[in-house]
Amino acid sequence: MVECSTDEIADAIRAYDGVTRKRAIGEIIESLRLVTPNVPVSFGDDAALIQNGDSGLLLAADGIWSRLLDADPYWAGFCAVLVNVHDIAAMGGTPLAIVDILSVKDSDVCHEVLRGMYEASAKFCVPVVGGHLHPDAEMNVIDVAILGSVNPEYAIFSHTAGEGDRIVAAIDLEGRIHPSCALNWDSATLRTAEEVRAQIRVMHTLGTDKLVSAGKDISNPGVIGTLGMLLETSRKGASVCLDDIPRPDLDAIGITFDHWVRMYPGMGFVVTVPAESVDRVLELFSGVGMAAADIGVVTDSQKLIIRHGDAETTVFDLKKQGIMGIPTDN
Amino acid sequence: MVECSTDEIADAIRAYDGVTRKRAIGEIIESLRLVTPNVPVSFGDDAALIQNGDSGLLLAADGIWSRLLDADPYWAGFCAVLVNVHDIAAMGGTPLAIVDILSVKDSDVCHEVLRGMYEASAKFCVPVVGGHLHPDAEMNVIDVAILGSVNPEYAIFSHTAGEGDRIVAAIDLEGRIHPSCALNWDSATLRTAEEVRAQIRVMHTLGTDKLVSAGKDISNPGVIGTLGMLLETSRKGASVCLDDIPRPDLDAIGITFDHWVRMYPGMGFVVTVPAESVDRVLELFSGVGMAAADIGVVTDSQKLIIRHGDAETTVFDLKKQGIMGIPTDN
Repeated sequence: MVECSTDEIADAIRAYDGVTRKRAIGEIIESLRLVTPNVPVSFGDDAALIQNGDSGLLLAADGIWSRLLDADPYWAGFCAVLVNVHDIAAMGGTPLAIVDILSVKDSDVCHEVLRGMYEASAKFCVPVVGGHLHPDAEMNVIDVAILGSVNPEYAIFSHTAGEGDRIVAAIDLEGRIHPSCALNWDSATLRTAEEVRAQIRVMHTLGTDKLVSAGKDISNPGVIGTLGMLLETSRKGASVCLDDIPRPDLDAIGITFDHWVRMYPGMGFVVTVPAESVDRVLELFSGVGMAAADIGVVTDSQKLIIRHGDAETTVFDLKKQGIMGIPTDN
Repeated sequence: MVECSTDEIADAIRAYDGVTRKRAIGEIIESLRLVTPNVPVSFGDDAALIQNGDSGLLLAADGIWSRLLDADPYWAGFCAVLVNVHDIAAMGGTPLAIVDILSVKDSDVCHEVLRGMYEASAKFCVPVVGGHLHPDAEMNVIDVAILGSVNPEYAIFSHTAGEGDRIVAAIDLEGRIHPSCALNWDSATLRTAEEVRAQIRVMHTLGTDKLVSAGKDISNPGVIGTLGMLLETSRKGASVCLDDIPRPDLDAIGITFDHWVRMYPGMGFVVTVPAESVDRVLELFSGVGMAAADIGVVTDSQKLIIRHGDAETTVFDLKKQGIMGIPTDN
C-alpha cells in the first residue's frame, strides 16, 4: 500500500540528493564532447558504445559515493564492482574486465574495500585487471571503470524509448536493507554466484531477443529517478502507477513507500517494452527470481507523472528541467 | 655532463616519492588476483591485455597526483589524458576511448581540468566517452581509464626483457620545464597534433615490426625508476651509463642531472631491444623528433646499476626489494 500522497512522494524524489547530484553532468558533457566516427553512443547511456571493426565495445566508469565508503568500506568495494557490472548489463552487454583507482588515506579502509571488490569480482566472474593507487591521499576514494562487449545490433540504449511502450521495473526482492546503509537494498551478497550471474544475463537476453526498446539499471536515484534519466535521454515522458512498483513487505521491514522508491535496489532494471513483449519480459525476470511488473506507459509529454488512485503528480517536467541537463542535440 | 656522483643520484632516485609511492601496488595485486582465462597479462604492465575472440583489448587506469592538481588544474587535466594515452602506446596499442571520474570540490578547478582534458583529447584524437561525477567531494580528484586495441601477437609487454638486450631511452627534448611543476617536462602542449600522434604511433610500429623485447612509457618515477619497474616485472637487472641518457641543455635550463632523471618527461619511452634492432629503433624515434639513445644493457643480476666514468652504484636490488613489490609468481 502507498500511504503517502503522490505530491509527497514527488517532493521526496525531487529533493533526494541521489537525484539532485546528477545535475552537473550536462555541463561536463558540453565541455568534453569530441565528435569521432567510432563512438555512436556515449554520454547519457550507462556505458559508451565504441565500434571496433565489426564488434562493439562498452566502456563505463562509476565512482562510489564517499557517504557509502564512510559507512561500510567492504560494502562500498562490493558495490564498486556491482554498479559497474550493472552498467554493462544494462546495455545488453557482457562484462569483460575492471580497473580500479584507489585513493587511500587509511589502510584499514583500503583492505576492506579490496576485500569487497574481490568478493564481487569473483561472484560475477569479472576480473580486476589493473588500476592505479594513490597511497597518500587526503581522503578515501574508489573509482572503477569497466570494459564489456556487445553486438551493436543487440545493444540496449537509454535514448530509444518509444511513445506507447510499456514500462517494466524488475527488482530482486529477496534481500534486506543493508545494515550499514538505509538507502541500499542488498540482494547480491545473499544470492549465490550462479543466481546473480543469471540475473545479469537476463538483460543480454532481452537485447538479443529484441524484447525491449530501452533500458537502464536502477542506480542511486532509485526507480523513479532512474526512469526519469532514461526519459530525459529519450526525450519522452511517462505515466507511472505507484501501486504497481515491485516492493517487499514494507510494514515488515519498517520503511515507508517514499523510502523504498528512493532506494538503490542492488539488482534492479527499468526497461521500456513494446506491448506485445511485456509478458515475455516479465517471465524472463521472474525466471531469475526478480519481481517484475508493468508499472506504466511511455508518453510524448516529456513529463514523468506518478499516479495513485485518482491522484497524480508531475515529478519531473523534463522539458523545463532535466535531471542531468544533457544538451538537446546530443 | 653528470655533475653528481652515482651514489648521490642513486640516493635521489630511491628517495623520490614518485618512486616510493609505487610500493603498495604489490599488496593490492595480491588482494584482487582472480584467475580468468581471457586475461593473459594484467598487473605490472602499463595496461591489461584482454583476449576478446581473436582480437586484443587493452584496459588501463591512471589517477592524477593531487600535488599536480593543486599546482595547475589545466595541466593536470591534460596529463590525465596524456598518461593514459601513453599507457596504451607503451603496449604497442591504439587508444580508442577514455572515461573520466571527477571528484569535484571546487567548480573553478573542475572547469580548468575539463579544459585540459578536452585539449589533450582533441590533440591525440581519443574521445572522452563518459564517466562519473562526484559533485560534492571533499577534495578534487581526477581518475581516468582508457580502452585500446592491440593485435596480441604484436603487443609490447613489461615482463619480457631478455638478458643481453640493449636498453633504449627516447624522450622528446623539444620542450620546457612545465611552469607549474618543476618535475614535469612538457613537450606535448607545444607540439602539433600531427607531431604528438606520430610520436605515439612509433610504439605501435616497434610492436608490429617486432623490434623490441619489452617497453614502458616513462612516468612519474622518471627514466631510471620506470626502467626499474620494467626490470622488476621481467625479473632482470641492468647496467646503465648515465652519460648516455638523453637530456636537454641542463645548464641552459638551470637544473641538475639528478633533477632531470627524476622528471616525468611528458613524452618518453624506455624499451629493451635485441642488439641487431637498435639502429632501426633509434632511427624510428629520431624520425618523430625524439632524442633516443642506447643507455645500457639488460643483465640477469636483478640489480639496476648506474655507471658514470669508473664509478658505479646499485640503485635497486630488485631481488631484495622491488619497487612495486609484485608477487613473484605473477
